[in-house]
Amino acid sequence: MATQPARGMRDFLPDDIRRREHVVRVIRDVYDRYGFEPLETPAVENIETLLGKYGDEGNKLIFKILKRGEHEATGQADLALRYDLTVPLARVAAEYQAELPKFFKRYQIQPVWRADRPARGRFREFYQCDIDAIGSTSLVVEAEMCAAASDVLTTLGFNDFTIRLNHRGLLAALLRRAGIPEAKHGPVLVELDKLDKVGEGIVRAAVAELLGSAAPSEEIMALFVRLTALPGDASRNDKVFGELRTFLGDQENQAVSDLAAILRLSASTSAAGRARIDPSLARGLSYYTGTIMEISVPDLAGSLGGGGRYDNLIGLFLGKEVPACGFSLGLERILVVMDERKMFPASVVGRNADVMVTIWDHAAAPDSLALAADLRRGRLRVDVYPEADKLGKQLKYASGRSIPFVTVVGDDEKAAGTVTVKDLRSGGQQAIARVSVTEYIRQKLDNAP
Amino acid sequence: MATQPARGMRDFLPDDIRRREHVVRVIRDVYDRYGFEPLETPAVENIETLLGKYGDEGNKLIFKILKRGEHEATGQADLALRYDLTVPLARVAAEYQAELPKFFKRYQIQPVWRADRPARGRFREFYQCDIDAIGSTSLVVEAEMCAAASDVLTTLGFNDFTIRLNHRGLLAALLRRAGIPEAKHGPVLVELDKLDKVGEGIVRAAVAELLGSAAPSEEIMALFVRLTALPGDASRNDKVFGELRTFLGDQENQAVSDLAAILRLSASTSAAGRARIDPSLARGLSYYTGTIMEISVPDLAGSLGGGGRYDNLIGLFLGKEVPACGFSLGLERILVVMDERKMFPASVVGRNADVMVTIWDHAAAPDSLALAADLRRGRLRVDVYPEADKLGKQLKYASGRSIPFVTVVGDDEKAAGTVTVKDLRSGGQQAIARVSVTEYIRQKLDNAP
Repeated sequence: MATQPARGMRDFLPDDIRRREHVVRVIRDVYDRYGFEPLETPAVENIETLLGKYGDEGNKLIFKILKRGEHEATGQADLALRYDLTVPLARVAAEYQAELPKFFKRYQIQPVWRADRPARGRFREFYQCDIDAIGSTSLVVEAEMCAAASDVLTTLGFNDFTIRLNHRGLLAALLRRAGIPEAKHGPVLVELDKLDKVGEGIVRAAVAELLGSAAPSEEIMALFVRLTALPGDASRNDKVFGELRTFLGDQENQAVSDLAAILRLSASTSAAGRARIDPSLARGLSYYTGTIMEISVPDLAGSLGGGGRYDNLIGLFLGKEVPACGFSLGLERILVVMDERKMFPASVVGRNADVMVTIWDHAAAPDSLALAADLRRGRLRVDVYPEADKLGKQLKYASGRSIPFVTVVGDDEKAAGTVTVKDLRSGGQQAIARVSVTEYIRQKLDNAP
Repeated sequence: MATQPARGMRDFLPDDIRRREHVVRVIRDVYDRYGFEPLETPAVENIETLLGKYGDEGNKLIFKILKRGEHEATGQADLALRYDLTVPLARVAAEYQAELPKFFKRYQIQPVWRADRPARGRFREFYQCDIDAIGSTSLVVEAEMCAAASDVLTTLGFNDFTIRLNHRGLLAALLRRAGIPEAKHGPVLVELDKLDKVGEGIVRAAVAELLGSAAPSEEIMALFVRLTALPGDASRNDKVFGELRTFLGDQENQAVSDLAAILRLSASTSAAGRARIDPSLARGLSYYTGTIMEISVPDLAGSLGGGGRYDNLIGLFLGKEVPACGFSLGLERILVVMDERKMFPASVVGRNADVMVTIWDHAAAPDSLALAADLRRGRLRVDVYPEADKLGKQLKYASGRSIPFVTVVGDDEKAAGTVTVKDLRSGGQQAIARVSVTEYIRQKLDNAP
């Protein structure tokens, strides 16, 4: 019988879970401190809730669940697996409208399922870690999200990330000012976004082809080339604003003021010095209506997270427009980079117990369980070897499992009221009074390198 | 557009999640201390992995996922939603055989899906919290599981639970001794299990009908009636063993010795005084092959958890028999009872933030975010009111959300380098030096009732 997980899905063995839990714990802890509240929704939604929300391409990637019982044979689906965390949030915002606060800030850390073709780093079941704030148009919301994401990454040990900021309104204004027809905005932006990856020549040719003539794109090409060439130092954002204002002309652009306001609001938060205005950032234009944000690190082609302001989605279920802004951390990518950079603390992985209690013989088994109970009361993680095997076999097992301490209570120890504690790392051992064992092991663990 | 969750599924709002997380945190913490290791498997399995593992009734309750793309129209299913945590464990034990330790002890806390008819307390998506130990026939395994479950329940505040213990071999021996044919063992046990619920008369009639004549059941009926009548004091288990030994005759029964050994092993653990030998406990006979265990409390008809030894399931995928024993805590039922008994600490629910930072006016917004950053560095949970609304409106919002403290920095406070901290519970307020605010609020919170 086949024993692999389903295609594109993963089993998480103990050390995988410990790494994931380490990151999730930091994320939850930071989001709690930012006043976001936990929300969870079912893995399964009514199929109508999901269909039509993710475009034609998305519809195809939704896992659909067969009707049951007599309807199974019809081949019809009435349910589907959660595809993202935003549509369920919109449904929840409508369903519990009366109970939820005016400004609803929630975090949601749950898996989603997409029938994508599996590839390196792309899975059919993966976790999303979303924060969203519903109900306010204030830019304080954006600033808080940038600060929260920075706090998460900084706490995890990242010190080289950049928060790229842009605004849908700025993109539209720039392209309008450059004389590019509205209908071409999307495709042109996709090309401009590639500037720092593929270089000026290729982008210039692609834009020219899109517009049918090179003429209207020269001005905007030149702007983006200048912006890309700006040095990445502390003065960069001011220089970008200068270029933008010059390009857009005298009239102050609201999107530019909004971006400047977010930087001002962030000045005393953990996002200070991280935020970088980047007019080339596009992030799937159809969805967002205002600010867009994305976090990148030098050694990852994609982003560690991103988000933005969207004003139409929540209203889909609520029947009225509600301002909203969201940010999603890419748990799977964060894990990949942390793994490559060896950023996990030694304490996170590779140790399932602090101490293993051996069993001297059948008659002594109840004493072993009593000792284990005492050690656990002292909050130690304790494995009990289940069988009265030869001591050497028991010790070898503990050693193979990287358990640092082993207790042995033979006839001599029992008579003397002591426990022999073996330190499998140093190879040493010491007889300790029964009442002091927990304290002894605890101290040895705390002093470990 | 419909906004309810799918039939039989639930949205968990913030306070629901906080209650669930409180319980899950205790469960994980205890299981970690018992040397169980975390495992997670995908929500979706290949359909062949699940079909045929849960009987005909189970097959019908499995949610099946339509093939995708061109195959969607065929109405065929190739995937299915996880139905329990044991079959995935068996698959994992086979797939990662070489990496897993000889004695693999894992816990797994994940949702499962069953297309059951929804009813009070019965959902189509619900969490299971399973521990299983693979690879040892030692009764130390059973004793550790009873102790771990007791630790979980005791830590959660339960002080009136009973761990009912029985053994498949004991049931078989009793029925054999009473002359009941093997084929009738299952149905007769189902009836005997009802003795303390429906009374002697009804059970006697049902058993007589099953056996076609009253004769072979009298002896076993009388035994069960005597057992049910035994007082629930400390001497009960010894009296039960006495009755069993008398009934079974001179030859010592292995199942009886096993049960006695589990009690001996448990004597110094948290399960001491909780375990009660109960020969009427049946627990779905087909699955288990040895010890069976179940935890009950007086005010719940069902159980808070249960498990037992099973020797055939893991081998389904591994191709060789492997001894195994498992215990599953009923998270949903634990939550129901804790809710009814009001067992959740006040700190668990109803408060999304320790303090709300107000915004005096637009110009002061960056200062508010700076103050929030300081408070968060002090590990306080801080909400920032996002807009520069009138102060009264901001205070009313905090009060409506039960946030205990609010900070205000107006022009006077700014000039004086202070922060006004309002205690919304007492109605009092105090001007505190900016540098001391975190410490001040922290102390007030720690001293709160």
